[in-house]
Amino acid sequence: MKVLEDYILEKGTVLPGNVLKVDAFLNHQIDPKLMQEVGAEFAEHYKEKGITKIVTIESSGIAPAVFAGLALNVPVVFARKKKSVTLQDNLYSASVYSYTKKETSEISVSKAFLNDQDTILLIDDFLANGQAALGLLEIAKEAQAQVAGIGIVIEKSFQQGRKLLEETGIDICSLARIASLENETIEFVRED
Amino acid sequence: MKVLEDYILEKGTVLPGNVLKVDAFLNHQIDPKLMQEVGAEFAEHYKEKGITKIVTIESSGIAPAVFAGLALNVPVVFARKKKSVTLQDNLYSASVYSYTKKETSEISVSKAFLNDQDTILLIDDFLANGQAALGLLEIAKEAQAQVAGIGIVIEKSFQQGRKLLEETGIDICSLARIASLENETIEFVRED
Repeated sequence: MKVLEDYILEKGTVLPGNVLKVDAFLNHQIDPKLMQEVGAEFAEHYKEKGITKIVTIESSGIAPAVFAGLALNVPVVFARKKKSVTLQDNLYSASVYSYTKKETSEISVSKAFLNDQDTILLIDDFLANGQAALGLLEIAKEAQAQVAGIGIVIEKSFQQGRKLLEETGIDICSLARIASLENETIEFVRED
Repeated sequence: MKVLEDYILEKGTVLPGNVLKVDAFLNHQIDPKLMQEVGAEFAEHYKEKGITKIVTIESSGIAPAVFAGLALNVPVVFARKKKSVTLQDNLYSASVYSYTKKETSEISVSKAFLNDQDTILLIDDFLANGQAALGLLEIAKEAQAQVAGIGIVIEKSFQQGRKLLEETGIDICSLARIASLENETIEFVRED
């Protein structure tokens, strides 16, 4: 997605350790116009898939997810993240390990909002090691919901997440794919 | 706001201890169409105030804030919540006590995204005891930003938050004002 790549080049910064900082428009400050375009792009990609619900994870997945939800006219559910593990009967939950924070958190979704009648689109802001997306897939599986696709705003294609998700066979739609951040230079995957 | 009151009556539930549960459309599952209307209502109320930025708090403030930001054509910044208090030079921060969770968390905003040239609109999903809003006001003060208004989706008018915020003299726009939840019955404030 050209406009997103332009934002990344213009407003993103590369920090040591292959970290791409995009808090100017995606995960701390949010550009609503860009998020609307991102949401519309996901909606266009998945409009024929019979999506009944979008599932994302707090906090940075919410903005792209609500615009996709608006465009597809479906509700959005965001999984909550907690450090403490408190099993509750009325929740689907999964453990997610963060390589960045080096900690495991519990993500959960109320059973009231997801079930075996749902066909869901998972949306997240970033795909790096894929642990958050795999956690959301685990929740979908617990709910016996169909997963029609995984929409990612920015994918770091050189990390393991893309490969792990591809192994599930689920359609992945990443709007910007970063091939490399070596030498603090942003290189995109060129598919054509 | 009539449509919001209808949602509250239809999909909200009252739990013991004056708790209003609205996780069917606001703070766990999100109704994007309703959030668009909520955002448009805030934008209409504040459109002449020269707003340069919307500031909210993760996670449930994000959806109403991004739609208001889209309608006003300004960026949205969400304050991050953390339990641990780590003072950092590049952050504005404030302590927020939660009466519900009985714990104090630190909220913070990067200094990169708020300064003395900003005229901000604060948006939050709920106003009860007012501690989150007061925390956001403290951050605005640290940044020497002007605060043009406080937009609240649902206000529990029988708790102290409304009064505390009124004492600041800042314009408050609450889209639904709950007068009482006694006997598990939702009563709205009737202003006309």
